[in-house]
Amino acid sequence: MTIYFGIIYGVTIIAVLAIIILSKYIFKQEKGNPKMQEISNAIKEGAMAFLKRQYKTIALIAIIVLIIITGANYFANLSKGSSDATSIAWHTGVAFVMGALCSAISGYIGMYMTVNCNVRTAEGARKGLNKALQIAFRGGAITGLAVTTLSLFGVSTLFLLFGGASGNDTLIKEAPSLIVGFGFGASLVALFAQLGGGIYTKAADVGADLVGKVEAGIPEDDPRNPAVIADLVGDNVGDCAGRGADLFESTAAENVGAMILGVALYPIFGVKGILFPLVARALGIIASIVGIAFVKVKNEDEDPMKELNKGYGITTILVLIFLIFNVRYMLTGTLPDGSEVNTWMLYGCAVTGIVLGYAFVLLTNYYTSVNNRPVKEIAKSCETGPATNIITGISMGMESTALPVLFISIAIFTSYKLGNAALGNIPNAGLYGTAIATMGMLSTCAFILAMDTFGPITDNAGGIAEMSGASEEVRLVTDRLDACGNTTKALTKGYAVGSAALATFLLFSAYLDQVKSILGKPLESWYSIDIGKPEVFIAGFIGVMLVFLFSSTAIRAVGRAAQYIIVEVRRQFKEIPGIMEGKAKPDYARCVDIVTKGALKEMVLPGILVITTPVLVGVLLGKEAAGGFLMISTIAGVVMALFLNNAGGAWDNAKKYIELGSFGGKKSEAHKASVVGDTVGDPFKDTAGPSLHVLIKLISTITLVFVALFS
Amino acid sequence: MTIYFGIIYGVTIIAVLAIIILSKYIFKQEKGNPKMQEISNAIKEGAMAFLKRQYKTIALIAIIVLIIITGANYFANLSKGSSDATSIAWHTGVAFVMGALCSAISGYIGMYMTVNCNVRTAEGARKGLNKALQIAFRGGAITGLAVTTLSLFGVSTLFLLFGGASGNDTLIKEAPSLIVGFGFGASLVALFAQLGGGIYTKAADVGADLVGKVEAGIPEDDPRNPAVIADLVGDNVGDCAGRGADLFESTAAENVGAMILGVALYPIFGVKGILFPLVARALGIIASIVGIAFVKVKNEDEDPMKELNKGYGITTILVLIFLIFNVRYMLTGTLPDGSEVNTWMLYGCAVTGIVLGYAFVLLTNYYTSVNNRPVKEIAKSCETGPATNIITGISMGMESTALPVLFISIAIFTSYKLGNAALGNIPNAGLYGTAIATMGMLSTCAFILAMDTFGPITDNAGGIAEMSGASEEVRLVTDRLDACGNTTKALTKGYAVGSAALATFLLFSAYLDQVKSILGKPLESWYSIDIGKPEVFIAGFIGVMLVFLFSSTAIRAVGRAAQYIIVEVRRQFKEIPGIMEGKAKPDYARCVDIVTKGALKEMVLPGILVITTPVLVGVLLGKEAAGGFLMISTIAGVVMALFLNNAGGAWDNAKKYIELGSFGGKKSEAHKASVVGDTVGDPFKDTAGPSLHVLIKLISTITLVFVALFS
Repeated sequence: MTIYFGIIYGVTIIAVLAIIILSKYIFKQEKGNPKMQEISNAIKEGAMAFLKRQYKTIALIAIIVLIIITGANYFANLSKGSSDATSIAWHTGVAFVMGALCSAISGYIGMYMTVNCNVRTAEGARKGLNKALQIAFRGGAITGLAVTTLSLFGVSTLFLLFGGASGNDTLIKEAPSLIVGFGFGASLVALFAQLGGGIYTKAADVGADLVGKVEAGIPEDDPRNPAVIADLVGDNVGDCAGRGADLFESTAAENVGAMILGVALYPIFGVKGILFPLVARALGIIASIVGIAFVKVKNEDEDPMKELNKGYGITTILVLIFLIFNVRYMLTGTLPDGSEVNTWMLYGCAVTGIVLGYAFVLLTNYYTSVNNRPVKEIAKSCETGPATNIITGISMGMESTALPVLFISIAIFTSYKLGNAALGNIPNAGLYGTAIATMGMLSTCAFILAMDTFGPITDNAGGIAEMSGASEEVRLVTDRLDACGNTTKALTKGYAVGSAALATFLLFSAYLDQVKSILGKPLESWYSIDIGKPEVFIAGFIGVMLVFLFSSTAIRAVGRAAQYIIVEVRRQFKEIPGIMEGKAKPDYARCVDIVTKGALKEMVLPGILVITTPVLVGVLLGKEAAGGFLMISTIAGVVMALFLNNAGGAWDNAKKYIELGSFGGKKSEAHKASVVGDTVGDPFKDTAGPSLHVLIKLISTITLVFVALFS
Repeated sequence: MTIYFGIIYGVTIIAVLAIIILSKYIFKQEKGNPKMQEISNAIKEGAMAFLKRQYKTIALIAIIVLIIITGANYFANLSKGSSDATSIAWHTGVAFVMGALCSAISGYIGMYMTVNCNVRTAEGARKGLNKALQIAFRGGAITGLAVTTLSLFGVSTLFLLFGGASGNDTLIKEAPSLIVGFGFGASLVALFAQLGGGIYTKAADVGADLVGKVEAGIPEDDPRNPAVIADLVGDNVGDCAGRGADLFESTAAENVGAMILGVALYPIFGVKGILFPLVARALGIIASIVGIAFVKVKNEDEDPMKELNKGYGITTILVLIFLIFNVRYMLTGTLPDGSEVNTWMLYGCAVTGIVLGYAFVLLTNYYTSVNNRPVKEIAKSCETGPATNIITGISMGMESTALPVLFISIAIFTSYKLGNAALGNIPNAGLYGTAIATMGMLSTCAFILAMDTFGPITDNAGGIAEMSGASEEVRLVTDRLDACGNTTKALTKGYAVGSAALATFLLFSAYLDQVKSILGKPLESWYSIDIGKPEVFIAGFIGVMLVFLFSSTAIRAVGRAAQYIIVEVRRQFKEIPGIMEGKAKPDYARCVDIVTKGALKEMVLPGILVITTPVLVGVLLGKEAAGGFLMISTIAGVVMALFLNNAGGAWDNAKKYIELGSFGGKKSEAHKASVVGDTVGDPFKDTAGPSLHVLIKLISTITLVFVALFS
């Protein structure tokens, strides 16, 4: 066991060193001229102010939830005559607080890096593409590494503290269940971070565009638009803070789920089966660090996307190699029939997961990039007006769910069968196979997150260059990086939803294990969720409905929050004289303030909806129904997220495709129609879609935490 | 038994008499001036030509399917060593042909009545509102009665022929399973009728509007538009032929499902439990005839909707009374513990179903009528352009799924628990409770169908009045009826999806019973569909995906078919001189011809998708997975259909609300934005949504028919 913790904490130290080196690199870069710094400072201030207020709101909700879960766990276990009631309650509570704190820190780091890298990237663009790329990507890399390392460190340390280091079999086996609170805390914060950030970014975007571009006729990112800083702040709070928290909780929740499954296979693997997911994560971080080091463009005409893909490829290959050792050394053991575990087959599970991750990135690319049929067809439909654009986009988005679902199905099926074959069909063997696949898929997570955070940094850099009146040459560099950042943002969303889908099955099994242990059944027994029972069927119905209702409230929240800013921008245009001639400065801060308040207000309702529904279903309809709810809402959530993300991404790029000169180019009727699609797609792909990723995992962790309450 | 068949065939004769009396009334009405007759004849010709060609295509597909099902059933049963292989195969084949034929006849009757009533309604409008209402509604009533009576007659007769009259217990108990082919044949035809009709109607509508209204700037239903006849034909083939076949198969499939469940309770109820659904249907027809007789407006200013609601209310009250006797006389018996069946509780199940039907109509009305918040909010969002209109409409449509799902859940739960309580918790008791609820809900079906067919008749009458240059006064009457028809069309869609949802659980139980009988297990045993198994989970994933993919192909098909007609209308405007001045007549027939071909071509792909997927899932993943697929795709299908129908209906009425003078009225920017929403909503509510109702039931009947093939 010592060696594994050696690897885990060794990697943690290496990652921290890498973060320090990268940070030193970033902070020694120049921050550009005073005008650029002024803009950058405004963004920084706005973003930090939002985060501060958002965290206050979340903290309030988290404290209420904390009281409820510790109290509920205490009394539920007490009433069942469990002697551990106090212990379970405080462990869960502590883990919850840790999870929530780490998630919040992840979001903070993501945001802090972006607001410091954006202006440096803009300045770096003067020195050429490679410099700008280095700054933006290394800034993203810091976030990626910090978030994944924090997740690894948090889960590992809690495991050690909660009995993992005791050397006592019973305590070791109990420890993973006590950490579920960590996943729940993380997902609770992630949900609100993603929701609040998603609402903020799109409300500011829609508001700035509608009054600025459409009504006043000034270009995007024009400094005369009072909402322009709010818009740039939005990119940070949505894509960085939101996605950082999202992927933090992905890695955390899925680690905990896999560890709980490891307990079920304790007779075969011992503690190694529980530690396997943590070591896999640690090795993935090393692979990502190497991949990150390889990203650089050699000549200035090169496509930066190519370099990012190269880095991703290197990371993937390294992970494929590392996991051979990981699986073959850790997952050995003797089966009940006396034969040995077939570790190559288990490695096959890991490969399945890694391949699925890659496939999701490719599929997302197919459906959302300007080079392929879907986006071109949507762009063509703009010629006959906004209605046909919307119809084509919606139908294309719905179509885009098919292949990913087939791939997920094949991956689950393959890894399940391989797991069973490797472990001689003992109970939970197949499930552990899917757990290994999930670990495989998530092992490249640090690199993916680096690519993701790269997006808003380049987006901001472009905005700063535009607003500070940089030269055409510099703008060309930032534009190229920005286009590349849009692609990475879309791809990482595909990856996030894919990993959520694969992880479902894992988290579901963890739930079943918890149910068994509460019912006093052995972990080797089979607990079935029979959809033929009316309670389970009804729960499934409500689960699908929740996905629709949640998407509805998230989308609507954007519209509502946008209204606030529209009114304010109109007011400023009317009341501040000389604003349109560029003589008077608009009141940026007030816009930031208004959209902050609006977004925070609007995030509460959908958030509460997600937290209360699973608990109500479990309490009213029972444990089995809660299991059905969990599974079916996840299925629907994944499919809906694919639809929303891909439709939104495709509309966005259909507009870009027309702006590049097709079907009449900018200012044509087709372009006007394409703007409508883009606006509709914004809350789809940046608010509702990503929030659904979190919703899926939150439902899993919430049912895990509250299971003691269910009838 | 004789008395029950006496009731069934007696009601059949009464219904036929009522149909003859109503037809005589219709055909003695005047057909208007030559111009009106000319238009009406053009519609009639186009509609009949479409139906003829559509039926040819469907016949071809049906013959292929017939060969496959008889062959597959024969060999599957043979390979299992069943001595009945030949018998099962030919019974299923005969039932399939009967079902397909009856469904086709239902569609034909619906269409025939509409094309004959439309011009008479337009002429009747000269004599006042009541006359026009009488003609239109009685025309609809003929369709409603014909379709439900045909379904009752078909199922009853097949049951008699297939062993129901043998007096032999074993043969009687086998008979219901042999009729499943009837439901499958009916749903197969219904799917293509609804898809083909739905694609036709919206392609013609979109095509006519885009070139006529938007490009050429001529009003709707203007005789100069070459696509105007195709548009009017579309109302018939989509709403009459399509919905007629849809509700025919609803009643057929659900009767068969309930009868199979009746077999499981044979020890308690004997043959009465199997015949109960048929007698309930017969009594519902009587109640509907009385309700229909009560529809008339007394003074010319009255709202016709009020009268229709009165008729519906009377039908509902009569059904509530009739079912007391039906339940209390037929569902008596002695339970294994010696106590008597509690028939009042079973009556409670029936009441639950009837109330659910009413609730669905009210909820649909809330979300789609101009008098309530949702439509008003969507209309308001048009002020900020098409993008906000689309966003609000989509989010409202998603929201509108919540309450119906809650109501379905409560209804299933209540009727299940009541069934269990009434029958002392014996196996299948709860399921029989939900079956009784479904019968309750569907007992008002004939009246609902009359209201539904009323819609296209009034729509057509309005078109004929417009095109023939009728006076302002006449137009006012037809406009009022048309508005009322739009409401009834929306409400009946809500009813259709509600009944599909409730019926799912019933059809699912029928599937489980079939599985048990194939596995040689007693019907009293419990066969569980465990969603924790990877095959079942994957099947569920594919099921939800199928709903999205099917909606996508259905929506896209409309766009594609519309392209054909757009090209043709543009060509005629260019090549036929004097067409815009009204001097030359456009070539209506060619437009009808082109959209016919286009719609039939485009309906094949989505149709094949729905037929093959469940069979593939069953063959590859097994019986349990097929059960999971069936349940979860149904849940998703119901929620998606609610979303599509309600969003489409709300956009339509938001446009109407603006046209009535709000937010700037006609020709305002808000109105333009509202037209975009209306266009997007058209394929939602008239193609994809209604086709999903059929899809849900088709998946049930297809798995029932092919279950012998599943591994």
